[in-house]
Amino acid sequence: MTTWESYLNENRDGFIGELLDFLRIPSISSLPDHAADVQRAAEWVAARIKAAGLESVRIMPTGGHPVVYGDWLHAPGKPTVLIYGHFDTQPVDPLDLWKHPPFEPVIEENRIYARGATDDKGNLFIPIIVAEALLKAEGRLPVNLKFLFEGQEEIGSPQLPDFMSANRDLLACDLVLSADGGQWEKDQPALILGTRGLAAVFLDVQGPECDLHSGTYGGTITNPIHALVQILDSMHDAGGQVTVKGFYDSVRLLSDEERDQFARVPFEEARYLREVGANSLCGELGYTTYERAWARPTLEINGIYGGYQGEGLKTVLPGKAHAKISCRLVPDQTPSRVGDLVLAHVKDVTPPGVKVTATKSESGAIPYQIPADHRGLGIAATVLQDVYGKAPYLIRMGGTIPANALFLQHLRAYTIVFAFGLQDERQHSPNEFFRLSSYDRGQRAYGLLLRRLGAEFG
Amino acid sequence: MTTWESYLNENRDGFIGELLDFLRIPSISSLPDHAADVQRAAEWVAARIKAAGLESVRIMPTGGHPVVYGDWLHAPGKPTVLIYGHFDTQPVDPLDLWKHPPFEPVIEENRIYARGATDDKGNLFIPIIVAEALLKAEGRLPVNLKFLFEGQEEIGSPQLPDFMSANRDLLACDLVLSADGGQWEKDQPALILGTRGLAAVFLDVQGPECDLHSGTYGGTITNPIHALVQILDSMHDAGGQVTVKGFYDSVRLLSDEERDQFARVPFEEARYLREVGANSLCGELGYTTYERAWARPTLEINGIYGGYQGEGLKTVLPGKAHAKISCRLVPDQTPSRVGDLVLAHVKDVTPPGVKVTATKSESGAIPYQIPADHRGLGIAATVLQDVYGKAPYLIRMGGTIPANALFLQHLRAYTIVFAFGLQDERQHSPNEFFRLSSYDRGQRAYGLLLRRLGAEFG
Repeated sequence: MTTWESYLNENRDGFIGELLDFLRIPSISSLPDHAADVQRAAEWVAARIKAAGLESVRIMPTGGHPVVYGDWLHAPGKPTVLIYGHFDTQPVDPLDLWKHPPFEPVIEENRIYARGATDDKGNLFIPIIVAEALLKAEGRLPVNLKFLFEGQEEIGSPQLPDFMSANRDLLACDLVLSADGGQWEKDQPALILGTRGLAAVFLDVQGPECDLHSGTYGGTITNPIHALVQILDSMHDAGGQVTVKGFYDSVRLLSDEERDQFARVPFEEARYLREVGANSLCGELGYTTYERAWARPTLEINGIYGGYQGEGLKTVLPGKAHAKISCRLVPDQTPSRVGDLVLAHVKDVTPPGVKVTATKSESGAIPYQIPADHRGLGIAATVLQDVYGKAPYLIRMGGTIPANALFLQHLRAYTIVFAFGLQDERQHSPNEFFRLSSYDRGQRAYGLLLRRLGAEFG
Repeated sequence: MTTWESYLNENRDGFIGELLDFLRIPSISSLPDHAADVQRAAEWVAARIKAAGLESVRIMPTGGHPVVYGDWLHAPGKPTVLIYGHFDTQPVDPLDLWKHPPFEPVIEENRIYARGATDDKGNLFIPIIVAEALLKAEGRLPVNLKFLFEGQEEIGSPQLPDFMSANRDLLACDLVLSADGGQWEKDQPALILGTRGLAAVFLDVQGPECDLHSGTYGGTITNPIHALVQILDSMHDAGGQVTVKGFYDSVRLLSDEERDQFARVPFEEARYLREVGANSLCGELGYTTYERAWARPTLEINGIYGGYQGEGLKTVLPGKAHAKISCRLVPDQTPSRVGDLVLAHVKDVTPPGVKVTATKSESGAIPYQIPADHRGLGIAATVLQDVYGKAPYLIRMGGTIPANALFLQHLRAYTIVFAFGLQDERQHSPNEFFRLSSYDRGQRAYGLLLRRLGAEFG
């Protein structure tokens, strides 16, 4: 008798061959020259989910790169689960650091090397073949299933909010599973209870109309770089706290239970520092490193420039200076409010003699958090426990996954990040890879999860 | 009877034609591709001073671009005057802003338009033809004369200190006249009693080994841009003073007489601001704008860069950040000492988590000041009074002319800046020009000055 697991096993080589075909499509969403490749990847995905047995399959326009949708809705009384992922990839620069061409996948030592292998084509492919296996083996799925795969996650999903807002009925679901994300370590699963939001502000400081001679005018006309460093330096205090007035007002404090959860995740300071090549930790007093990274808001200067940057010295008092700032947000901060607070702070501290234009970036994202006692999360935890033989860590992410918050906002559904990449798999870097062991384990985990959700959720 | 003045008058057209030839040589000292042109300009100058009647004419190597020397030493008992100028020019970018090609001089509305017209070929040419006129008309010069014209003033005269040190006997003199500089306004002469010195420091801040994701590591690993703005912002207080410990220790305070001299120079705030397109003045409390610009030391950030500078946002926590700082110095500060003080300050205020490399630039310059009661200065004042019909302002310059201090250091001779360009003649900018009225007046002034120095100086 064919079971969904034996079906996956028997077809393993063929499925890997298909995944390699998928990885050969250079669907780089940030480069206009590759727009046709992103479209081609959408067509590949649409054809593949149709072949898997999904229905109502369609490629939907967004104004940017397209979205692929498909569903199977023949499980009355069962929950509806939407699975999210993305078929676009990061660019490949610097190309000379790749051992193999990024879009010519190779398998070496049980790893698939290619751009997009772990982020996110390999992870996206898993639930597709699991759905096929369940349909082939059992003739039905244990839940109502919707696939929503997008083509511009790597450029910040600019049209996704409008797309979701316009397609609430089509996308309506009880739970979202995100196939974009990862696990903690090779043998240690993790569930992500929250991702931070984002608010960005650009500062443009205008001093004199043009660059001046710093000998002639130094000390009499305000140097816009001086004004800029003064403004930027005023944004943190000596204890590492952000001094922007009202910045922490809406911050949800960590409960003792949450602090305990974080404390259960081993932290090795020496290893953490070695991985980034830094010589000491920094941050807000009174918080652990994980608390700082996962549950406290930050304000970081991502870029600064002004005046002369070439070799040697040019004694210029420049006309302009610029900085890019982004804040990571935690519940219940909002990008709009935090952006306004930063703008007000800049206005308060701008010295005379310069004009500062502070602009809120459009790429904001709401912070996301799923309640630790969410029923689906509990079910996912049992699956990970069974597949890895270990209880998952309950963690958060310092980064931002805008989609998670958007699903909650537009569909009123929580997202469980259920993906199998690991942090060392060079997402966004040369020689990206995906472990075949993760690929196999992911299939088993997705099959178990869909079955248990059908039996226990809702 | 031919007088030196009638000689200049009769040959005016020919001399202007020669100056235009000189201006056609694209002797840009900063561009290696133009090294042969700088050499060609040196040959032009050598031939021209030889034709004027100078002796011992030679093109001398410096290790960089060459120097041209010539002398006439047949006035026993009379002072020896060395006249300094430079035959190299600034680059011409941006070329599209020039109304005429920069090395194809044209005369329009009594102005010679060309790169180098006022800085410094036009000014350098004046004493050459004045010496010729005096020799032709009188058979002799009123003083012993030495010409020292260099080919790399626009790149900071890097080999000039060693050259002077190695040629003290050849260059020995009682007084230097600098043909590089200018007057206050079209009808208002000025004498420059001092120029500021220069000390520069480069800061390179190293945080993590490579650029990090600001979501993952923001708030836990020190951002080198944060460290840099903290270091830089610590260098001034709210009153505009430099907070580097010991920075003002060697500063010679202004006497009441000097403050009175400066106060006699009209200052129109609205015009000063309009000329640079700024909206307010800044600077050290307790000093006027001229005092700040001419007689107080400064610390200016000339350039800053780090992280992402492109369009939009990239949420990077960069590995490195950089700044270039230069200080203008006044007597009796020295570049070496001030550089050390800045380095010590940086060390004191560097926060944990980053490594800062602070490097003193080699392009330092000693501040220069000539005593207000210097005899040669008094004689120059009478000449300017006679030529302009107005007493010169006694001013200083905020900028740096390294040669002035070098002459004092190596030759023990003070320099009188005696040149005729005006501030609006677009030195270093597109459409540089030199007024023919200044060119004519400069000839009369040089003739009178050499005669009066012969009669009254020493």
